[in-house]
Amino acid sequence: MEPTKKGILERLNAGEIVIGDGGFVFALEKRGYVKAGPWTPEAAAEHPEAVRQLHREFLRAGANVMQTFTFYASDDKLENRGNKLTLTGAQINEAACDLAREVANEGDALVAGGVSQTPSYLSCKSDKEVKAIFKKQLDVFTKKNVDFLIAEYFEHVEEAVWAVEILKESGKPVAATLCIGREGDMHGNSPGDCAVKLVKAGAQIVGVNCHFDPLTCVKTVKMMKEGVEKAGLKAHYMVQPLAYHTPDCNCQGFIDLPEFPFALEPRILTRWDMHQYAREAYNAGILYIGGCCGYEPYHIRAVSEELAPERGFLPAASEKHGMWGAGLEMHTKPWVRARARRDYWQNLNPASGRPLCPSMSTPASWGVTRGHADLMQQKEATTKDQLKELFDRSKNH
Amino acid sequence: MEPTKKGILERLNAGEIVIGDGGFVFALEKRGYVKAGPWTPEAAAEHPEAVRQLHREFLRAGANVMQTFTFYASDDKLENRGNKLTLTGAQINEAACDLAREVANEGDALVAGGVSQTPSYLSCKSDKEVKAIFKKQLDVFTKKNVDFLIAEYFEHVEEAVWAVEILKESGKPVAATLCIGREGDMHGNSPGDCAVKLVKAGAQIVGVNCHFDPLTCVKTVKMMKEGVEKAGLKAHYMVQPLAYHTPDCNCQGFIDLPEFPFALEPRILTRWDMHQYAREAYNAGILYIGGCCGYEPYHIRAVSEELAPERGFLPAASEKHGMWGAGLEMHTKPWVRARARRDYWQNLNPASGRPLCPSMSTPASWGVTRGHADLMQQKEATTKDQLKELFDRSKNH
Amino acid sequence: MEPTKKGILERLNAGEIVIGDGGFVFALEKRGYVKAGPWTPEAAAEHPEAVRQLHREFLRAGANVMQTFTFYASDDKLENRGNKLTLTGAQINEAACDLAREVANEGDALVAGGVSQTPSYLSCKSDKEVKAIFKKQLDVFTKKNVDFLIAEYFEHVEEAVWAVEILKESGKPVAATLCIGREGDMHGNSPGDCAVKLVKAGAQIVGVNCHFDPLTCVKTVKMMKEGVEKAGLKAHYMVQPLAYHTPDCNCQGFIDLPEFPFALEPRILTRWDMHQYAREAYNAGILYIGGCCGYEPYHIRAVSEELAPERGFLPAASEKHGMWGAGLEMHTKPWVRARARRDYWQNLNPASGRPLCPSMSTPASWGVTRGHADLMQQKEATTKDQLKELFDRSKNH
Amino acid sequence: MEPTKKGILERLNAGEIVIGDGGFVFALEKRGYVKAGPWTPEAAAEHPEAVRQLHREFLRAGANVMQTFTFYASDDKLENRGNKLTLTGAQINEAACDLAREVANEGDALVAGGVSQTPSYLSCKSDKEVKAIFKKQLDVFTKKNVDFLIAEYFEHVEEAVWAVEILKESGKPVAATLCIGREGDMHGNSPGDCAVKLVKAGAQIVGVNCHFDPLTCVKTVKMMKEGVEKAGLKAHYMVQPLAYHTPDCNCQGFIDLPEFPFALEPRILTRWDMHQYAREAYNAGILYIGGCCGYEPYHIRAVSEELAPERGFLPAASEKHGMWGAGLEMHTKPWVRARARRDYWQNLNPASGRPLCPSMSTPASWGVTRGHADLMQQKEATTKDQLKELFDRSKNH
Repeated sequence: MEPTKKGILERLNAGEIVIGDGGFVFALEKRGYVKAGPWTPEAAAEHPEAVRQLHREFLRAGANVMQTFTFYASDDKLENRGNKLTLTGAQINEAACDLAREVANEGDALVAGGVSQTPSYLSCKSDKEVKAIFKKQLDVFTKKNVDFLIAEYFEHVEEAVWAVEILKESGKPVAATLCIGREGDMHGNSPGDCAVKLVKAGAQIVGVNCHFDPLTCVKTVKMMKEGVEKAGLKAHYMVQPLAYHTPDCNCQGFIDLPEFPFALEPRILTRWDMHQYAREAYNAGILYIGGCCGYEPYHIRAVSEELAPERGFLPAASEKHGMWGAGLEMHTKPWVRARARRDYWQNLNPASGRPLCPSMSTPASWGVTRGHADLMQQKEATTKDQLKELFDRSKNH
Repeated sequence: MEPTKKGILERLNAGEIVIGDGGFVFALEKRGYVKAGPWTPEAAAEHPEAVRQLHREFLRAGANVMQTFTFYASDDKLENRGNKLTLTGAQINEAACDLAREVANEGDALVAGGVSQTPSYLSCKSDKEVKAIFKKQLDVFTKKNVDFLIAEYFEHVEEAVWAVEILKESGKPVAATLCIGREGDMHGNSPGDCAVKLVKAGAQIVGVNCHFDPLTCVKTVKMMKEGVEKAGLKAHYMVQPLAYHTPDCNCQGFIDLPEFPFALEPRILTRWDMHQYAREAYNAGILYIGGCCGYEPYHIRAVSEELAPERGFLPAASEKHGMWGAGLEMHTKPWVRARARRDYWQNLNPASGRPLCPSMSTPASWGVTRGHADLMQQKEATTKDQLKELFDRSKNH
Repeated sequence: MEPTKKGILERLNAGEIVIGDGGFVFALEKRGYVKAGPWTPEAAAEHPEAVRQLHREFLRAGANVMQTFTFYASDDKLENRGNKLTLTGAQINEAACDLAREVANEGDALVAGGVSQTPSYLSCKSDKEVKAIFKKQLDVFTKKNVDFLIAEYFEHVEEAVWAVEILKESGKPVAATLCIGREGDMHGNSPGDCAVKLVKAGAQIVGVNCHFDPLTCVKTVKMMKEGVEKAGLKAHYMVQPLAYHTPDCNCQGFIDLPEFPFALEPRILTRWDMHQYAREAYNAGILYIGGCCGYEPYHIRAVSEELAPERGFLPAASEKHGMWGAGLEMHTKPWVRARARRDYWQNLNPASGRPLCPSMSTPASWGVTRGHADLMQQKEATTKDQLKELFDRSKNH
Repeated sequence: MEPTKKGILERLNAGEIVIGDGGFVFALEKRGYVKAGPWTPEAAAEHPEAVRQLHREFLRAGANVMQTFTFYASDDKLENRGNKLTLTGAQINEAACDLAREVANEGDALVAGGVSQTPSYLSCKSDKEVKAIFKKQLDVFTKKNVDFLIAEYFEHVEEAVWAVEILKESGKPVAATLCIGREGDMHGNSPGDCAVKLVKAGAQIVGVNCHFDPLTCVKTVKMMKEGVEKAGLKAHYMVQPLAYHTPDCNCQGFIDLPEFPFALEPRILTRWDMHQYAREAYNAGILYIGGCCGYEPYHIRAVSEELAPERGFLPAASEKHGMWGAGLEMHTKPWVRARARRDYWQNLNPASGRPLCPSMSTPASWGVTRGHADLMQQKEATTKDQLKELFDRSKNH
């Protein structure tokens, strides 16, 4: 560990903004190193140069945290995947820790060891069994002396609580993020209740990651914050959303969109969307602000640029980026030069270039195929009862 | 040079498909190493690990050509850019050659040295002066012994002819691609006429790159091919289009779209669009098939996968990709498993997730701001041949 | 009055469906007899043949109620309009009653005398003054012996209550509909509270009309019904929505959409949307089902056709309409014949034919001009506080 | 005949604008008097008050021509329809003439007797047989002394020529319009060639009606005009397009759109689209400007208002319409008042209110079901002339 760096809690306690990294699984899928479907991180050991490079790009974009590339790297998940691997879980987790540490040492970043939801929980294994799974990853993180721990991407707060309980045993700071929206977790616990459970289990930082777009995630974390404060507890907050517009998602998030995972391109957020996101997250009292699936280095750079006044500096990658399009100032065409300004990009409504495509999709799990299942239904379908009603109705026709 | 590899002309003469790489400038801008506006490639010397990694990803995706990252690396352009560089043009060009060669040696790829249009031409310098600019880059390519040469991204065929004339002096094979659409170059030369001029100047391979989406580019190269054949000449053909949908472009291409260059996200092509592109390019008699701005490694992999039956093998990166979504077969949700098939992805009309955004934009240079000025534009597809073509294409899929 | 016809309450008490007519103001604006802006009904006296014809078309489409064309025909409103009229309020109201009665006598329809919100209320006149305004219209309705009375298009429940109190003096049945959505009236009274107030004031039928699309209106009436039942009261329910899709409206309804009132065309509901509406309204326990602005005779016919199984008969106009497109069965082109079925029309997502136009608008009163004011904001902006927050935020940028 | 009125040719020879009426078949279908599928005009005899009222509305909107409601009223077509009629063809044609004359006498309008394409032609009957069909309708027109004759809605110029030859026998002026787009008729005759044939057959006025949107139709008539002038002939020109946006039509027009005929609502043109249409038609040298399917009286009024400076007067219906939204000037909400101006409405891009619907459809006869088969279609607008035209047009507004 770098003795000269401030720890995660020191930073947050001091009111410092902590910028997270982006989504490794999706970025490396596009680069050819992760397989969509299994989504496992064996590339940490198989192709370390690719993983190291992505770490470096996020560092350069302003990230203060290098998350170990250990998503879905629990033993039960690795065994579960389609292709058999020649690597052990420990090998993958260790390699991931080494890469994160190597790049973290190149700048002002901490290493966070990460665990995520397990197939064991979904197949109804006991808390003891599930905790044993997490414990194996934690052993690696302890050995490799990561700076703090993150339990992320949990749909069920119960499993996340178990993870926090294990991670706490290390004595290191623990963050916990669920992949839920404003309707709460899959057991119907509200965001506020979820957050309270996580804080009571010992998490010092709570929030959400993945599954929904930035503004939904910020709203959800606000609900968590309200719950925690109402319960008379204290915590720090973090948010790591999708870089996809998902206004049409139901409670299961982008998994249920027809475009998941191979046709999400038209939904990708621009860098300007990121400015808005970063500002709203900060205004909501969230200090740990990062990204998940869909986030490329330039998205994190935009977060860093928006918050540069508060942080007092620009990230390294801004040497290759003019603020608000300033790099276009010397373009030969006057109408392109006219785009070198904040107003232009903030007000632009970008076209999809796809005249046969709609603006919104109907999430798969609704079972809705009717043409005039309109937006009103989608807006309203936010509680389980409503979803059920919608589904039932669709069968009547 | 690798003595054991077949040269570019040997491959094309034998009817082999040659897959190009994707767009370095845009990909590295998103990764934080290229500045939008100047678009110069100093990263080849400043951040070799980032450029090397991108080369590797394209190689892994199936590319047979590593283009030296020397776009806009002519001395006049480098001096022209906003930030002064501490590197000489020769340093940048040499570093780029070394990186391309290093990665090419890791697989079955050739190195192509590339030159592109110059500020000198646009400021009306003489052919002698412009050729001297190209000569400086060519000297590096000769010293570094690249396998062949590409003159690419020319809006004016006259300048491209000058480039070809210089590059021919090396004795190496020469390819030439213009960044034009079906209306031809900025002087009003039709695609067919442009191609004839390039072939007469000595280019063995001709085609287009950048500025337009794949289907437009394939059409333009077809017009080139018709022109060359009508003139009783012979050539090979190549195409390296944008990975953006641009049905609303005017003759200057995507530069004039309001979204250029910072809000093009909703237009990004999916991997399934790439299958269609690769097939149409091959059916049109184009053997050298690659990509330009917007192409990420997974786009090139999709080209390789579509043409795997003809090539006889899948690219390395397909170890991390199930054909037509096969990786989803084991998903826990039945409606996601149902997406593990070709029909699903070929027929999906992906939503933009942006209800406030339109399908099409009005290119800036038209000076069109009116709401209902659109009709005329989209209504031209009306000759019987075009309709028939559209109908025929639809049946192939 | 027709002694042989059952009255409105007899019908509703018997569980009969009562189909209302459509929107006179908008329909006659398109036909050239009403001026957008003032929206006053002087055409009843000026062009009786045009008003009579529209009545007949709605009768023929299955309507059981001929509302007198007396919208905005209070004396204060008539004086308020731009062009001075040579007709007195009494003349207009009397002519409207005569026309409604004449056509009602041609079929199984009742005549309903209607009053609507007044400028006097908006300029803070006392209940006494406002009631005097309504009284003048009521005197005509009494003299002309209409079958029942409707107080409709009130944004403030307080004024609607005053109207009901006056209309009750006639001894005739009274219906009352507000032009509100699920957020309630302009004073913040919820739909449920509004309905209770109206029922307590003496209205036997309550509901909503205008301002929102059918599914929003059905939902709002459901909230009214819940409120009334919770208060231990009883009432009948009615709904007369817009024939425009308005998912993007804020609490003030379609008035605030940028397209109001001269570019609403792309939002017009199809006849198939009407089938869904009629079914959902009926399923919600609403027996009086009609339409407001945007409703043309064919929309009302579609309501009648959807509910034909319950009513036991088709409307006269169905002699010129095949159910679910059956009239296409003999078309010469097989692909048009294939449209002669329910499934086809229920599942069709009709294109706008407008590639430069978005799916959703940003209502004017939000003061939002920023490009990425996304759907989430629109979905959420449903309480006044949220609207205020949204407005305030928009000013910060 | 009204001896005091100028005839159609006198008007056109004098350079006067002649405004046509709108689409009876579609308007009366929505009003409940015409059955979609057969589309026959028996309502002229069955429901004369409904037909008379529509005539009056078009007259009031500024129309100078009352076309007899005799579309598809040839004996072979009437026999061909699904429901048997109790009326003879002569009865229907006579009733239609009487109604047109009655209303024409109320203003400055002429009566035009109309014939349209026949089932006999499509089933390959001889010219003699087809002409006999037309002759029966002509006998009525002669007896009723209409002012001139129109042969309209022909997909095959050959049949239209036969119709003109018969109509010429009456000695009255003859107009002829085909329902074709820029690709010409169903036998492959170009618009120019079609027009020449019609003029040679004796038509004094030629043009197009139905099947395509206004700008396509104006373009097609321009091609006709060029053909006629090139042939050294002379004619007057007329255009009566759809009131639907159809940028995605193939050569068979809106019949092949998936939305035809029951879900075309989102495509309906606004009154502001009509201003543009009227101006472009007039600028193209077309003097007879009217409408076909989808045209409601307010659309024709907008044509009259746009051309009021040239004609020197506003239509009667403009008493109920403020130019460019002026009627909104006194609205209570300032942001609605702000819409009372030309700029606002000309620049508005109206939203569809349908987030699940695309901008464009794929016409049925293409057999295209694939999602990404769209590109080619919209990308043809690329010759420099077309771009220039688009640019020039945009500056006119």
